[in-house]
Amino acid sequence: MGKVTMGPQTLIYPMPVLLVGSNVDDKPNFMTVAWGGIANGEPPMISVAIRHTRHTLKGIRQNSTFSVNIPSSDMVEEADYCGVTSGSKANKVEVCGFKVFHGKLGSAPLIEQCPINLECRVINILNLGSHALVVGRIEETHVSEGCLTDGKPDVNKIKPISYIMSPATRYQALGEVLAKAFSIGKGLKPRQ
Amino acid sequence: MGKVTMGPQTLIYPMPVLLVGSNVDDKPNFMTVAWGGIANGEPPMISVAIRHTRHTLKGIRQNSTFSVNIPSSDMVEEADYCGVTSGSKANKVEVCGFKVFHGKLGSAPLIEQCPINLECRVINILNLGSHALVVGRIEETHVSEGCLTDGKPDVNKIKPISYIMSPATRYQALGEVLAKAFSIGKGLKPRQ
Repeated sequence: MGKVTMGPQTLIYPMPVLLVGSNVDDKPNFMTVAWGGIANGEPPMISVAIRHTRHTLKGIRQNSTFSVNIPSSDMVEEADYCGVTSGSKANKVEVCGFKVFHGKLGSAPLIEQCPINLECRVINILNLGSHALVVGRIEETHVSEGCLTDGKPDVNKIKPISYIMSPATRYQALGEVLAKAFSIGKGLKPRQ
Repeated sequence: MGKVTMGPQTLIYPMPVLLVGSNVDDKPNFMTVAWGGIANGEPPMISVAIRHTRHTLKGIRQNSTFSVNIPSSDMVEEADYCGVTSGSKANKVEVCGFKVFHGKLGSAPLIEQCPINLECRVINILNLGSHALVVGRIEETHVSEGCLTDGKPDVNKIKPISYIMSPATRYQALGEVLAKAFSIGKGLKPRQ
């Protein structure tokens, strides 16, 4: 199969839809981030890329804390809104009807309606160009009781959203289970 | 709805399944990474978290380049294999039958069978604990011709894999389209 080159592109599939929160001038604000992922195992850390001009970044710098909230697919309208609106112009918490709580860190606002909430303390902020890559240590994890099965977070109840860039920007749900991890590949052996 | 605290967890949904490649002692090697994401917009950059002991990291340090290849769901067996096997003990390229090519950078091995291939040059390596967070500038993007629609990468043809951590580690395909991005949220207004 032939290949086509397209120049440098920010093209990975799938990306998560994350609501990153901070208190800006003591007021909770949230923005949508698709450019983020786990950054370290022990201790647990996460990284999120945020454009320098974003209101949420101001609050992250003020408190050196932030939150990462995972919305479920029935929150797709709110998740999209938080990506297209600036907290400098609208009270997103009010518009979206988010119930906000604070946990262990005190200064990282968390969204009750989101099935998963991570409280993070800033470890590093790299200026990479258009964006700041904020690396945070995950200090506490909150999971909605209704999203557990046998005490474990259950993806079928969490119903996370994927952000897809191309051929058109859109949100997708997860689909069929393909295989068990750390298992299906064990059958592969060197070909004789 | 009540919340349960679970301590610090590397818990985000969904995570991508990426095959990160490097030439180790001039031999192409690939490992599976779920902990990665776009790190910057202009210029395009990506970050991947790699355990310090991994063979692939050795090659990244040797060349200051690496690749990120996105496998499709029909490569789930190979993707899993590359996560559970070390390149110090097996020739993964041979076992998986990967056709390897090199692009613009010359030293970042790319997998022809993967619909998307990103060539990256190392910008920074952060030692965060158990893992190194490798930040790379995306220098070129290759897309399989068969995965384009009207000249654009098409997620329905790419068929990317999501890695799910909990309740059990597994791989899932993408599912239904939930909404158009930068659109569905525009209808939200402050509640009166």
